[in-house]
Amino acid sequence: MSDLLLDAVVSGVQVIDLGRQLKVGMPQSPNHPQFWHTMPRRHGDVMRSDGGSAANDMITTGTHVGTHIDALAHVSQDGKLFGGVDASASCLGGKYVEHGVHTIEPMIRRGILIDPPTWLGVSDLEGGREITVGDLKQSLQSQGTVIRAGDVVLIRSGWGKKFAEGAAYLGGTSGVPGISEEGATWLAAQGIHTVGADTIAFERLAPGGGHAHLPAHRIFLVENGIYIVEALDLEELSARKIYEFTLVLVPLNIFGATGSPVRPLAVVAA
Amino acid sequence: MSDLLLDAVVSGVQVIDLGRQLKVGMPQSPNHPQFWHTMPRRHGDVMRSDGGSAANDMITTGTHVGTHIDALAHVSQDGKLFGGVDASASCLGGKYVEHGVHTIEPMIRRGILIDPPTWLGVSDLEGGREITVGDLKQSLQSQGTVIRAGDVVLIRSGWGKKFAEGAAYLGGTSGVPGISEEGATWLAAQGIHTVGADTIAFERLAPGGGHAHLPAHRIFLVENGIYIVEALDLEELSARKIYEFTLVLVPLNIFGATGSPVRPLAVVAA
Amino acid sequence: MSDLLLDAVVSGVQVIDLGRQLKVGMPQSPNHPQFWHTMPRRHGDVMRSDGGSAANDMITTGTHVGTHIDALAHVSQDGKLFGGVDASASCLGGKYVEHGVHTIEPMIRRGILIDPPTWLGVSDLEGGREITVGDLKQSLQSQGTVIRAGDVVLIRSGWGKKFAEGAAYLGGTSGVPGISEEGATWLAAQGIHTVGADTIAFERLAPGGGHAHLPAHRIFLVENGIYIVEALDLEELSARKIYEFTLVLVPLNIFGATGSPVRPLAVVAA
Amino acid sequence: MSDLLLDAVVSGVQVIDLGRQLKVGMPQSPNHPQFWHTMPRRHGDVMRSDGGSAANDMITTGTHVGTHIDALAHVSQDGKLFGGVDASASCLGGKYVEHGVHTIEPMIRRGILIDPPTWLGVSDLEGGREITVGDLKQSLQSQGTVIRAGDVVLIRSGWGKKFAEGAAYLGGTSGVPGISEEGATWLAAQGIHTVGADTIAFERLAPGGGHAHLPAHRIFLVENGIYIVEALDLEELSARKIYEFTLVLVPLNIFGATGSPVRPLAVVAA
Repeated sequence: MSDLLLDAVVSGVQVIDLGRQLKVGMPQSPNHPQFWHTMPRRHGDVMRSDGGSAANDMITTGTHVGTHIDALAHVSQDGKLFGGVDASASCLGGKYVEHGVHTIEPMIRRGILIDPPTWLGVSDLEGGREITVGDLKQSLQSQGTVIRAGDVVLIRSGWGKKFAEGAAYLGGTSGVPGISEEGATWLAAQGIHTVGADTIAFERLAPGGGHAHLPAHRIFLVENGIYIVEALDLEELSARKIYEFTLVLVPLNIFGATGSPVRPLAVVAA
Repeated sequence: MSDLLLDAVVSGVQVIDLGRQLKVGMPQSPNHPQFWHTMPRRHGDVMRSDGGSAANDMITTGTHVGTHIDALAHVSQDGKLFGGVDASASCLGGKYVEHGVHTIEPMIRRGILIDPPTWLGVSDLEGGREITVGDLKQSLQSQGTVIRAGDVVLIRSGWGKKFAEGAAYLGGTSGVPGISEEGATWLAAQGIHTVGADTIAFERLAPGGGHAHLPAHRIFLVENGIYIVEALDLEELSARKIYEFTLVLVPLNIFGATGSPVRPLAVVAA
Repeated sequence: MSDLLLDAVVSGVQVIDLGRQLKVGMPQSPNHPQFWHTMPRRHGDVMRSDGGSAANDMITTGTHVGTHIDALAHVSQDGKLFGGVDASASCLGGKYVEHGVHTIEPMIRRGILIDPPTWLGVSDLEGGREITVGDLKQSLQSQGTVIRAGDVVLIRSGWGKKFAEGAAYLGGTSGVPGISEEGATWLAAQGIHTVGADTIAFERLAPGGGHAHLPAHRIFLVENGIYIVEALDLEELSARKIYEFTLVLVPLNIFGATGSPVRPLAVVAA
Repeated sequence: MSDLLLDAVVSGVQVIDLGRQLKVGMPQSPNHPQFWHTMPRRHGDVMRSDGGSAANDMITTGTHVGTHIDALAHVSQDGKLFGGVDASASCLGGKYVEHGVHTIEPMIRRGILIDPPTWLGVSDLEGGREITVGDLKQSLQSQGTVIRAGDVVLIRSGWGKKFAEGAAYLGGTSGVPGISEEGATWLAAQGIHTVGADTIAFERLAPGGGHAHLPAHRIFLVENGIYIVEALDLEELSARKIYEFTLVLVPLNIFGATGSPVRPLAVVAA
């Protein structure tokens, strides 16, 4: 029996981790329950007679916290989810039985990076800078990368460097760079499967503007059934100029939830 | 540029999901905080002026709940973790900075299934049945499967069928089938990377015996640095007689935790 | 300035604690999120340069867990809360803005104990035993206790002794003693303010019957605006034959919640 | 039977609520798990065949959040809790079995308010202003209030007005007014039982100084076994010039915790 995939894996692969470490105090949107990790039991608290001891954990968190994926159930427009599903009716017993995160298939797909700052010759884009269709096209051309239907498309703004700074990453006063209505419309038209960015809210936020207006969420989640991944770490991909890779993304299978923390991987042959 | 892995992925892969759905009320060990999912915000709770609305979630859970992986920090013996690391000293600020789940590299590795019930011609093993080294060797031989160093080895008992039954899955009175000291010693000697099973505690539990004695945890986690995955769903692999595959397992990168819920995948060329 | 209350307090009071200790693993209804307490930080985790250290906690819990009070928002009948309030409309932004637990005034009121087992000469009533109006009246008469409008009325069944036994307290197979439709109707007619019992669900549960039918909840919460307190510890009051007392009950002021853990006190002059 | 306390209660009492409402997003110290309230079940999610429905809640919170009390186990100095108790040894199985919040007796005691801003003729003290022993003594004299041993002493700075403003209440850059080492030493010498304030950290914080230095915590909790209550609402007491009252404070009986949210009451004869 020959399995091309396993042959490739056994030949050796490199894994680039695109997820942020989950850590108490990391920056996150105040709209979502804060990530907390604490240990009910540490070693030594209870020792078995044979000298063995187990430590364990308790986690409390929103699902749109750290690097995470938005299920289609996350956003509605005029009372409708993707496909015209009624947002109220799809919530049974307090769970989004339609379009919940449990309906996202684990992804092992072609992934590509679009890296406008590198094309522009800057380390990162300033807050509020819109990434236009022109930016996307010219970055792709300069990279020699082609989008194909079914791809997972990751857009780097360089803003991810601020993750370690805490509140600055949220961009409340500075705004945040990203694509907006125009870019989302163009990307959706390419037939992509999932889109991601290195910012907390994925799309361009105006300075001081907050999260009041999120057109890309509507276009991707509600109108096109395209998943959104946020708070990615795209720095290593950019530094190594890896623009095409196998993207592995496995959401937690949480019945009825609107999202999940994820730890996406870019994988390339060693 | 050619990437064997991506070529294989693009040629088409099948994904077999080895993880259990995370659902309020699923069976879990009472030693760990219970999994809960609830939605602070549902569609319609807050509607933006443009007709958009977002729903979100709150999760509370232990990390050894649902399908999950044990980090090496989970178990100590005589005050030591793997490699002789002092269990108390490795806990800084309430986090296991050494051997915490954040130290587990995402896995894209050769995985194999060992399926004693199929070799024995039964649908599943009874509670308390020890899976011996003989069982392992003969199952491997009948399958034509060879263990290699670095593998992820998944052992099916058939007990996973009881997951949907709730408390029966825990096997409090019935016991649970699995390997014990002998099997663990033999498997560890093969140089494997990670081991898994379709039961809640991985190893053989005597009827009525509870979790007082867990030799395989000591052998794998403390003495050999081999990770343990529990509560896997191995039924589809068995039914389809898939004994060799690419195993994808990506723990959440929770700083200092002793484990993580995971959704492992077996992937084969389509 | 003279304050009769403060004079009485300064003269000396005895406090009888009617609340259960909140402890991981205590019996509770599986319908509600489990009580968990864990400590993110223990002494020594982080030491300030001056030798000071602080320890802290994380609590996760349902509100109908341990000794607790039901707000009027807890139960609806045919879509209506007390006073004909629409149950859906009263939930704004995921909070019961009407009849939530934040609307319960702290109670410093006359409280009385009704103790049918003592009148019957038994230590406790058996599972499924209904406490009838006759039982209530005869107990009151034998105690020499009179119900007055505005009272907090606590009904002892003796079942509270099982709290330490765990699952037995829930009475899944045995049923639980308590008042039912008849008793609730009669008590409500006395104009009482709040009612309580030493059982998890307040009312009589038939053996094996579960929580499918809860007429007293409807009568008290929906039809009469009378609060219900559950899982009280009434053993000391009974043993000391204290039938009349100052009842102090202060719910947490949780905006929009349907209940709160409470620690009610019976207070008498020393 | 006559009960002075009950006679006073039945004669009529007024309750002044000194607790803050627990609400998602309220200001709190980032050192403690954030308060979250969410409803797993709302009315209509699951309807019983008889038309009845129950809604319920899930709460996650630190214990030093909202108005709360510090147990003696909260703070250690040089590895010791109050009474020379070893801070490490008192933590068994992850619970402070000594000096945990479960060891605080419910309080029904004489309470007094000390109101320096009123004495000074200002609405509130500025950030970083130390309340000196002179301030305390002159306020007491101008009020005609005498401290007695066993009292619960509440100190108003007026800072509580900022609670509704959010982050300003924490005083990160402004500092916070309050007593410091001198005031704490003097108050402790009066033999008081518990002390409280209308600020988040009880004591004077220097502008920009954070929580690095907390001498009053050491003096009260570690050296004198005096409990501390924080984030009180003392505005109504001050406005009504109520300086002496019955103080009712009932911590949740959480086994082994270092604190508890509380809703203290000042009660006076009507």
